[in-house]
Amino acid sequence: MATKRLEAFADGVFAIAATLLIIDVTADAHGGALGAELRHAWPQYAAYGVSFVTIGIMWVNHHTCLELIERADRRFLFINVALLACIAFVPFPTRLIAEHLRDDGLRAAAVTYGLTMTATAICFAAFWFYAATGRRLIAEAADQRLVSGISRSYLPGAPIYGTSTLVALVSPTASVILFAAIALFYVLESSLFAREAPSGFEPL
Amino acid sequence: MATKRLEAFADGVFAIAATLLIIDVTADAHGGALGAELRHAWPQYAAYGVSFVTIGIMWVNHHTCLELIERADRRFLFINVALLACIAFVPFPTRLIAEHLRDDGLRAAAVTYGLTMTATAICFAAFWFYAATGRRLIAEAADQRLVSGISRSYLPGAPIYGTSTLVALVSPTASVILFAAIALFYVLESSLFAREAPSGFEPL
Amino acid sequence: MATKRLEAFADGVFAIAATLLIIDVTADAHGGALGAELRHAWPQYAAYGVSFVTIGIMWVNHHTCLELIERADRRFLFINVALLACIAFVPFPTRLIAEHLRDDGLRAAAVTYGLTMTATAICFAAFWFYAATGRRLIAEAADQRLVSGISRSYLPGAPIYGTSTLVALVSPTASVILFAAIALFYVLESSLFAREAPSGFEPL
Amino acid sequence: MATKRLEAFADGVFAIAATLLIIDVTADAHGGALGAELRHAWPQYAAYGVSFVTIGIMWVNHHTCLELIERADRRFLFINVALLACIAFVPFPTRLIAEHLRDDGLRAAAVTYGLTMTATAICFAAFWFYAATGRRLIAEAADQRLVSGISRSYLPGAPIYGTSTLVALVSPTASVILFAAIALFYVLESSLFAREAPSGFEPL
Repeated sequence: MATKRLEAFADGVFAIAATLLIIDVTADAHGGALGAELRHAWPQYAAYGVSFVTIGIMWVNHHTCLELIERADRRFLFINVALLACIAFVPFPTRLIAEHLRDDGLRAAAVTYGLTMTATAICFAAFWFYAATGRRLIAEAADQRLVSGISRSYLPGAPIYGTSTLVALVSPTASVILFAAIALFYVLESSLFAREAPSGFEPL
Repeated sequence: MATKRLEAFADGVFAIAATLLIIDVTADAHGGALGAELRHAWPQYAAYGVSFVTIGIMWVNHHTCLELIERADRRFLFINVALLACIAFVPFPTRLIAEHLRDDGLRAAAVTYGLTMTATAICFAAFWFYAATGRRLIAEAADQRLVSGISRSYLPGAPIYGTSTLVALVSPTASVILFAAIALFYVLESSLFAREAPSGFEPL
Repeated sequence: MATKRLEAFADGVFAIAATLLIIDVTADAHGGALGAELRHAWPQYAAYGVSFVTIGIMWVNHHTCLELIERADRRFLFINVALLACIAFVPFPTRLIAEHLRDDGLRAAAVTYGLTMTATAICFAAFWFYAATGRRLIAEAADQRLVSGISRSYLPGAPIYGTSTLVALVSPTASVILFAAIALFYVLESSLFAREAPSGFEPL
Repeated sequence: MATKRLEAFADGVFAIAATLLIIDVTADAHGGALGAELRHAWPQYAAYGVSFVTIGIMWVNHHTCLELIERADRRFLFINVALLACIAFVPFPTRLIAEHLRDDGLRAAAVTYGLTMTATAICFAAFWFYAATGRRLIAEAADQRLVSGISRSYLPGAPIYGTSTLVALVSPTASVILFAAIALFYVLESSLFAREAPSGFEPL
């Protein structure tokens, strides 16, 4: 079957997961204290922004993969359900980090975030390699160099996030910096990747 | 009329129902107690996962049916509204079970879950048999063996969930294990079904 | 322009508005008291069901209209935004009625519900008559008898809801019964309407 | 690639952002006090309405732009993610203004609203000018006068909102009136714009 309805369900989950975090952005001060409260609550806004962008990157990557995939079978749909369950979970540990950035809970928050991202990376790899192995679900017209390029770029995800999770056990602060660096790298890499795509093939 | 817009509305409800449970996933401990709080709150995460996967399975099944259905009339739309209302309700009893897994409220939670799933199974059967009886809304090209196969697979749903609900009255713990087994069975059965589809027909 | 993207946005709002009410369905009792709490909280579940079905009916009607409409202009989009704002507001007064069904707040709740439904009916009429007057946005192929039939069926909406709101001032209980009767009538009328559509024209 | 899936994701975020504010609309009074509570809470309803209409206007504008855009690249997707993150943030400062309309917190609330709208206007301009510069992503068939018209109309957005934010520092009340006037202007301007589009080209 075509991937059209998978995209509709996925887009819905991505949109909701990205947007839901705004529910947690609050400022309960009364009267003149509101300004101070808003300045103090900056980690909340940062968590909203980071979470939205993280899910946005995943949406772009999911999108890029599905551009090359032309069929879906039931097992592929179930892998997608698992992947989307991980992605929709991301706002929770992101919020935990924001709330505990300045107290002793940062270690537990960073480990939770790391485990979530590691699970997400594993599901993302399962999603892609299930479709790409032997070109099982890949469109005939898709350039094999592009398929191989995505395969290469998906291999390091889980080990990188797994290692960062171990770092969180030793130094929560270091791991948070690492998580931010990884997210930034993915944004930049996406732009570079777009520029270096083999000529004659639309990279997205 | 075509089923395109029905799919859009349904995908939206499925996506929101699956994702909304993340709102209830919380951890309110302060400072160093966060780790213990997160470990203690595992039923919350399990409820999120089970609920997401349950709704994901329903989405796959709804999807499979609509692949064979090419028309909709107003009564079919209303049946869909009732079905979606049941499905969007599922996260509530799932959360109840998670919250009361370790206290005396498990019986009431399991009965609520069982009644919800029984009602959902009845609506799912109404949805399918309304479309399939006399091939009322079925696409001309759809293989009758596939239509009959789905009809057979939808008959036991309501009795199985109804019986499990009665089990909950006697032994809540047994019924929770039963509910988990049914969900697992549907995931595995979907994979088997995909493998055994009549040759020459794309099973999804 | 085509109405495709209007449908996507509308389907999203309908799906979210229908599903969001589940957030308010709660049961906070501990341990063995859960059963009694769940039985006591039935107005919550009724409110969820009524709200979901009400929004489902509006979705079906919005859908039916757009089947006949083939173009949209900016003013039509803004009318739709106003209509969707009313529809997404419906869960709030529905919940108010459920919460105050057994106390003195029912009058205020019923008036709020009535005003919301009156505003929604006015927006629905504006939506349809903007499109239908002089067949401004109607598809060439659409049967004029069908267009006129919808026009006739949309005229009484606002007066009926307005009158029911006035009834709420005198007898809140009577108005709640009236609101339920109107919703039931719309479900039944939709089925009848589907049966009586002029032959040779697909009624949806 | 085509812009179809970008539209699906964007429509989801718009729909959720517009609808979510209903969660914050509450009335917690008991019994006979509900009427007074509902009358007192009017800024909540106003915030819901203003926020819904504001996001509705942005949806119409986003829509209008994408009608002229026929391709997307990865950088354009990321700009969209940033734009949508701003738009989904809008309900938060809108709610702040509603809550603090009658106390000393209005200055901080109005500044937050102004900064959000300024950031949104900057992202909207980046979104449009990235696509329109050298007609990078514009459809061949799109009328250059229409493209230039949108470019002209997008230039003043950020300066206007930036100035209004500065006004908020001096007089919060004046800035709130200004924000309302800007929103009203955009609704009216959209209607005028629709009427003055060059003949022979469908303005939306």
